[in-house]
Amino acid sequence: MPFILKEISELLEGKVAGDDQVLITGINSLKEASPGEISFFSDPRYRETLKRTRASALLVSGMTDLYRGPQVIVPNPALAYAKVARLFTPPLPRFPGISKSAVIHESSTIGDGVSIYPFVYVGMGAIIGNHSTLFPGAFIGDRVRIGERTVIYPNVTILQDCVVGSDVIIHAGTVIGSDGFGFVRDGTENVKIPQIGFVQIDDHVEIGANNTIDRAALGKTWIQRGVKTDNLVQIGHNVVIGEHSVIVAQTGISGSANIGREVVLGGQVGVGDHIAIGDRAMVGSQSGVAKSISPGEIVSGTPTMPHKLWLKTVGLIPRLPQFNTRIRELEKKVGMLQSKLEKVE
Amino acid sequence: MPFILKEISELLEGKVAGDDQVLITGINSLKEASPGEISFFSDPRYRETLKRTRASALLVSGMTDLYRGPQVIVPNPALAYAKVARLFTPPLPRFPGISKSAVIHESSTIGDGVSIYPFVYVGMGAIIGNHSTLFPGAFIGDRVRIGERTVIYPNVTILQDCVVGSDVIIHAGTVIGSDGFGFVRDGTENVKIPQIGFVQIDDHVEIGANNTIDRAALGKTWIQRGVKTDNLVQIGHNVVIGEHSVIVAQTGISGSANIGREVVLGGQVGVGDHIAIGDRAMVGSQSGVAKSISPGEIVSGTPTMPHKLWLKTVGLIPRLPQFNTRIRELEKKVGMLQSKLEKVE
Amino acid sequence: MPFILKEISELLEGKVAGDDQVLITGINSLKEASPGEISFFSDPRYRETLKRTRASALLVSGMTDLYRGPQVIVPNPALAYAKVARLFTPPLPRFPGISKSAVIHESSTIGDGVSIYPFVYVGMGAIIGNHSTLFPGAFIGDRVRIGERTVIYPNVTILQDCVVGSDVIIHAGTVIGSDGFGFVRDGTENVKIPQIGFVQIDDHVEIGANNTIDRAALGKTWIQRGVKTDNLVQIGHNVVIGEHSVIVAQTGISGSANIGREVVLGGQVGVGDHIAIGDRAMVGSQSGVAKSISPGEIVSGTPTMPHKLWLKTVGLIPRLPQFNTRIRELEKKVGMLQSKLEKVE
Repeated sequence: MPFILKEISELLEGKVAGDDQVLITGINSLKEASPGEISFFSDPRYRETLKRTRASALLVSGMTDLYRGPQVIVPNPALAYAKVARLFTPPLPRFPGISKSAVIHESSTIGDGVSIYPFVYVGMGAIIGNHSTLFPGAFIGDRVRIGERTVIYPNVTILQDCVVGSDVIIHAGTVIGSDGFGFVRDGTENVKIPQIGFVQIDDHVEIGANNTIDRAALGKTWIQRGVKTDNLVQIGHNVVIGEHSVIVAQTGISGSANIGREVVLGGQVGVGDHIAIGDRAMVGSQSGVAKSISPGEIVSGTPTMPHKLWLKTVGLIPRLPQFNTRIRELEKKVGMLQSKLEKVE
Repeated sequence: MPFILKEISELLEGKVAGDDQVLITGINSLKEASPGEISFFSDPRYRETLKRTRASALLVSGMTDLYRGPQVIVPNPALAYAKVARLFTPPLPRFPGISKSAVIHESSTIGDGVSIYPFVYVGMGAIIGNHSTLFPGAFIGDRVRIGERTVIYPNVTILQDCVVGSDVIIHAGTVIGSDGFGFVRDGTENVKIPQIGFVQIDDHVEIGANNTIDRAALGKTWIQRGVKTDNLVQIGHNVVIGEHSVIVAQTGISGSANIGREVVLGGQVGVGDHIAIGDRAMVGSQSGVAKSISPGEIVSGTPTMPHKLWLKTVGLIPRLPQFNTRIRELEKKVGMLQSKLEKVE
Repeated sequence: MPFILKEISELLEGKVAGDDQVLITGINSLKEASPGEISFFSDPRYRETLKRTRASALLVSGMTDLYRGPQVIVPNPALAYAKVARLFTPPLPRFPGISKSAVIHESSTIGDGVSIYPFVYVGMGAIIGNHSTLFPGAFIGDRVRIGERTVIYPNVTILQDCVVGSDVIIHAGTVIGSDGFGFVRDGTENVKIPQIGFVQIDDHVEIGANNTIDRAALGKTWIQRGVKTDNLVQIGHNVVIGEHSVIVAQTGISGSANIGREVVLGGQVGVGDHIAIGDRAMVGSQSGVAKSISPGEIVSGTPTMPHKLWLKTVGLIPRLPQFNTRIRELEKKVGMLQSKLEKVE
């Protein structure tokens, strides 16, 4: 469905410089845009691409003379892009109603306008909120509660007693509520500590594909409102992740760690058990967090250190062989100086 | 189902100090316990919490005067906790019998008391032992053999010819028997080496969620009795993991590595191919194991080094910029000393 | 099905030294081979094993007098092994035709000789090429196109609009076309950037188990011909991976990275966003690639450095405590020299 540029500008509360009656049929990158499509410019690295773009309109934060078509001036072109992209996003493909090839326990409660694909299993006493969507292979365990407008992608497993909020997205292959990794040694054997808690996922959370989020040993593992996780993230039992935090792919958070709000963890980070990471802290990719991090700190490395110190430090790691040579050289020189000095004395 | 404290103490072969007729209705952490619940105390960091707990009884290794209710004295409170928690663990939710919505090959053998949920596929000649449970989306390939009382959680894939023992737990989303990563270069192309072995998982093993365990190229990949793996663990073809070893989340073990018994691998460890790790060795989180480890060694880092040396070493990494400055300073001073000394000579 | 050694030799365009009429019933490692089986010798580490093998014939690059049976001389024994192993590989277990327990949208197109197991879902307008195989739990989204002879293992998710070529293998639990991890901050909240691109996987690609390959934000994420990925690999949105590249387990590639052809990425590598890695470059395990890599470069470490330098460097990391002591010692000595020299002056 096409829009007139004026409509788009009004949606964004922006200002059009140039023809606001242009018909916009889609959105694309500067490089790939065809006539009819709108694009966006915010990263100066793309100046050369901007000059050659075939886009019919542009989202910008300030007028640019590198582009001759109409420009919509907005405070945050990236945010404006997200909003315009939503206009052109095809709707979620939803199964009409409840498939006869799904198995839904008679004691469960299914809300209005729920879409349940074939091969979905919904357990005893589960509750699925209005307008939620369950894709094929979704397993919804006994007494699981799911809010409204939530999307559970294919082959997701949500085990018994877990709670998922409204407007949540859980990508394919993710496991919610697997047992926490708790054992106690008895001689040479590892005795399982029963994991009798659950996982709670609050509203507006998005969980990536093939994540694993373990249920608590006791009490709950808690993913708070607005958290976003990337793919292949591991979250241990009794972890708490504060509101609007962001966790990049392949990061692992050990049991009982407490992550604050608006925290950013880079990719492939490891967080030790019982660690606390303060609000708005940031942790660089591949870091190993073995001690707690204060609010607002920006750290990297193993062990974690201030990010700026880490940048200096990793720059020196390839120079260790030089260090070695320089120290050896110094030792030689100092030895020679010592013997010379002895002679002089 | 509630228990009298005396019953719990007898189960643990412990000794009650105080009223042994208290009714116990559940178990919880010191912090979260409500009246009626039992808790446990072993970690001195929780002394303050202990003073304020509302628990009605306590598992301890030695009497404490920070708590006024009845105490059960046991040699290992963590182990006692695991045993008591089992009393209050709700039973595994099992589908009654074999679902009509499962597809089970007529040539397979299904034991007594097996629970098969909807959307389970059991292949040709497969054998499922007595009282095992197959959750929805479990795929059991041709000729797979599964022992007794084993639990296969949702969306687990066990490919043809693999063997799984008794009292095994395989958490959701895990893949057993995918092809090992074997290719041989032919010009620019990678020619697949057929992977015609299998995976054998022995009794009392527990495999975490979204693990991948590859079948052997020839022969078998072998996970021995009592091994426990956390989530998102990768085990390559022809790997052997000895009895009661423990592997923490997101660790990867390359092909033909040989891990001894009672080994502990921390999280996000990488083990190179053909590496041997001796019995009871321990490897710290995020280590890169590129050379074999002797029995009983405790190592960390990349390259691995004795854990104590590693602790010293990583403490020095953030001081590399200082090292650089100090070396430069020394070079200057030594240069000056040299010229001064030349003048003196 | 057994073969005469002469047949095998002809297949390999090799030359038999010894009796070429021996009947070969299988292939196995030197250590495990039984009479009747053929084995192979290329790695000198296995000389001792070679002396004791019970194999009835041997693939070698040059005659060896450590073995008395017939030998097939071939230029590349590893490649020859792959080819012979294929002779003895049991055929893929295929469901005969299309299961009545699959759900296939009436608007989809299913080719000739396609095998569709129970519990497969094929969406609206999807196309499945001739002789492809879909295992249980495979989800094929709307308008997905799959080529010929492709194998989709159990519990694989391929979301709407993705394109998969011919002769592709996708191992169990893998997710193709999940949303890229794209958000833009709006105050404290993270606003989702709609991901409206797709994933294209070209012919002869093999994707490991439990991989995650995100759809592009705009345009496509592109896995080119002959690429092989191991298990638990993460590929971000808009990534391009060039022909015949190989990616080892648990490696993560961030959004818009551009990987050349015939590149090798070791295990647990992290590649930053927008990074370019040149053709035929190699990156060692656990490296953190934060800057682009030139064609043919061999690098390791975080930050990446030439592999040879890295080998020297990591050898020095455990010696940091010594460095510290040596520098301190030097400082002391230089201090003493300075005061002595002052006296002399």
